[in-house]
Amino acid sequence: MFNLFSVKGGLSSVQGFYCDGVNVGMKDSQDGDVAFIRSDTPCAITARFTSNKFQAAPIKHYQQYEKDFKTDFILMNAKNANAMTGEQGVKDIEAILETLQKHQKVQNPIMSSTGVIGYRLNQEKIGSAFSKFDYHAKNSDKTARAIMTTDSFKKELAFKIELDDGGSFNLAGICKGAGMINPAMATMLCFIVTDANIPKADMEELLSEATENSFNKISVDGDTSTNDTVMLLSNGHSNSYDKEAFREALNKITFELAMMILKDGEGANKLVAFEVKGAVSQEDAKKASMALSNSLLVKTALFGEDPNWGRIASTIGASGIDCDDTLLSIYYDKLLIYSHEQRELDKEREEKAYKIMKNSSFKVTCDLGLGEESYTSYGCDLSYDYVKINAEYRT
Amino acid sequence: MFNLFSVKGGLSSVQGFYCDGVNVGMKDSQDGDVAFIRSDTPCAITARFTSNKFQAAPIKHYQQYEKDFKTDFILMNAKNANAMTGEQGVKDIEAILETLQKHQKVQNPIMSSTGVIGYRLNQEKIGSAFSKFDYHAKNSDKTARAIMTTDSFKKELAFKIELDDGGSFNLAGICKGAGMINPAMATMLCFIVTDANIPKADMEELLSEATENSFNKISVDGDTSTNDTVMLLSNGHSNSYDKEAFREALNKITFELAMMILKDGEGANKLVAFEVKGAVSQEDAKKASMALSNSLLVKTALFGEDPNWGRIASTIGASGIDCDDTLLSIYYDKLLIYSHEQRELDKEREEKAYKIMKNSSFKVTCDLGLGEESYTSYGCDLSYDYVKINAEYRT
Repeated sequence: MFNLFSVKGGLSSVQGFYCDGVNVGMKDSQDGDVAFIRSDTPCAITARFTSNKFQAAPIKHYQQYEKDFKTDFILMNAKNANAMTGEQGVKDIEAILETLQKHQKVQNPIMSSTGVIGYRLNQEKIGSAFSKFDYHAKNSDKTARAIMTTDSFKKELAFKIELDDGGSFNLAGICKGAGMINPAMATMLCFIVTDANIPKADMEELLSEATENSFNKISVDGDTSTNDTVMLLSNGHSNSYDKEAFREALNKITFELAMMILKDGEGANKLVAFEVKGAVSQEDAKKASMALSNSLLVKTALFGEDPNWGRIASTIGASGIDCDDTLLSIYYDKLLIYSHEQRELDKEREEKAYKIMKNSSFKVTCDLGLGEESYTSYGCDLSYDYVKINAEYRT
Repeated sequence: MFNLFSVKGGLSSVQGFYCDGVNVGMKDSQDGDVAFIRSDTPCAITARFTSNKFQAAPIKHYQQYEKDFKTDFILMNAKNANAMTGEQGVKDIEAILETLQKHQKVQNPIMSSTGVIGYRLNQEKIGSAFSKFDYHAKNSDKTARAIMTTDSFKKELAFKIELDDGGSFNLAGICKGAGMINPAMATMLCFIVTDANIPKADMEELLSEATENSFNKISVDGDTSTNDTVMLLSNGHSNSYDKEAFREALNKITFELAMMILKDGEGANKLVAFEVKGAVSQEDAKKASMALSNSLLVKTALFGEDPNWGRIASTIGASGIDCDDTLLSIYYDKLLIYSHEQRELDKEREEKAYKIMKNSSFKVTCDLGLGEESYTSYGCDLSYDYVKINAEYRT
């Protein structure tokens, strides 16, 4: 058994990690645009990257390191994704990281970028951060803010885990992402650091599992970016570790960060869980659930607070899975809104449905009535502001 | 050889066909909400229906007729899709068509509906149309208007085909559809009538081909409805026929009607052709092309008139096809906007790109540089109005 506490301080709560963010003139706001996370000793690292074929230069650069390499430094920037920049994009990273070495001795440094696609990094501006950084700062707030793009709030979380044997470890994460989020983790960056003494194999296994159950279950608009990254770094400073405790803490931190991204979905006002159950296969359940969280017509109906089960049924029917309208039932939270016996929505249920839809979060459950498999994905509504933000912002 | 002329009068231009539309109080506007198309002799009929698993009651009712049945009457209504209404939905159609027989002798009548999902048809209101119809009218305008839902303009077209042997035939069509249009023909109804003496086998073959090259290539929002229908009726009155001439006329009428739907995409201002060429397979070309015409980020960039090739490249990369950023090139009309050698957009090309994007229609070409296969699909931009229309309108 173990206890898991939420703690303050974000990344700074984890032993041996330092971080800072500064503004070098790429963002107009007060927020930083270049940041770092470093450890005072080399870290084991595990990463999950975008499924987009056009992986950005920072991902290609990362993949040049040998398997099981250790690192003590991640450099991050906003405003420029360094994507679709070809070999030059990787060379630019190498040049920037070489400049960094003149200011701070680092081992196998990593770079991570987010922003506009198709432009070379401004080496001079990014390089100017190196004399501005406080390499001994524990400034999680500034770091989390520096990686924001269309985000309307910073996203950071930290947990302390106390084990029964008296040992304890910390786990903290920051992430960015608002629009363009999709099953395959679009335009999101997430950095998780821990001082737990976790074996490398567990890092791989647990990060895969946690990503699958969090970032890969959310959808803002079904698009997948060139830069998506989730990283887990461990410096082992605490000497403590328990697999189940770590699993729970990591699942919790990734799920909660994913929900923050969804709540910050560009122009989104509502967070909706789409549970599809009673499916003949997990694959069917997932397909239908993701179709719901991606459907424009479902999303606009959510925004309009219209208890429109017709669009939900139609989306399930169009998803290509096994389904039968005489077996299907649809619920908003616990309110039955459609079944074979009760097809038309009477005034009373419609009133109740309206009330549920006015909440900032609720659950849509579709029971296919065919089998035992289920899947839940998470989506948000589509508002005028989504269109405004994405018509005006260049990615 | 043959000559193809555009003619006036829509459906009324075709020999032996009659049509009318009336308002029975389901629509608030002046437009009709119930309509018919009939022929004075029985017609051969071919239809293509939605791929949605939850096919609406009218489609189930149609499928009860024997293969190669002939019909002389189609009854149509707006405001109610008669979808997700179970067996009762089919029984309601049977009852309505039985009432019709008391007013007008018809053979194997067909019903076609569009509107809200999940409510039973109002038999009384629809039945009240039967004494209002002028069964000898040739009122194509009223018929085309009666099937409109969120459409902002009626969609009808007619062609006369003159053959070298002195014979001629006519082909005319009406359709409805604005939002919710997708590769699988969502919420669109299309009725095409001809007096050509076309064999049934050619009707099947040519309607499939024409649908594939028109309605299945357009996308407004990637959703697929329960009611989509394309029908071709032929009464053979002209005694003339030529397969190539008919193919060209049918392809032309379906393509132009599809473009009208796209131009009427809910809140859409721009019509964009997405050509993907140089693909290793047709399947890849189609997948990437459809991904582009369905991408929210591409659609909002079109609305913002932002020459944002990054989103186009990213969408291709995310589509799961074979691609390589060093071989890819992207054009707006004939303007090269991205290639390996020319990655960053200079001011001059950016200015030119802005000008192209200000047009109400243009073409985006992505040459993958890998093979010989190509595919073109057609999409539109996503505006504030799309969200407004779909948040407020219940389907």
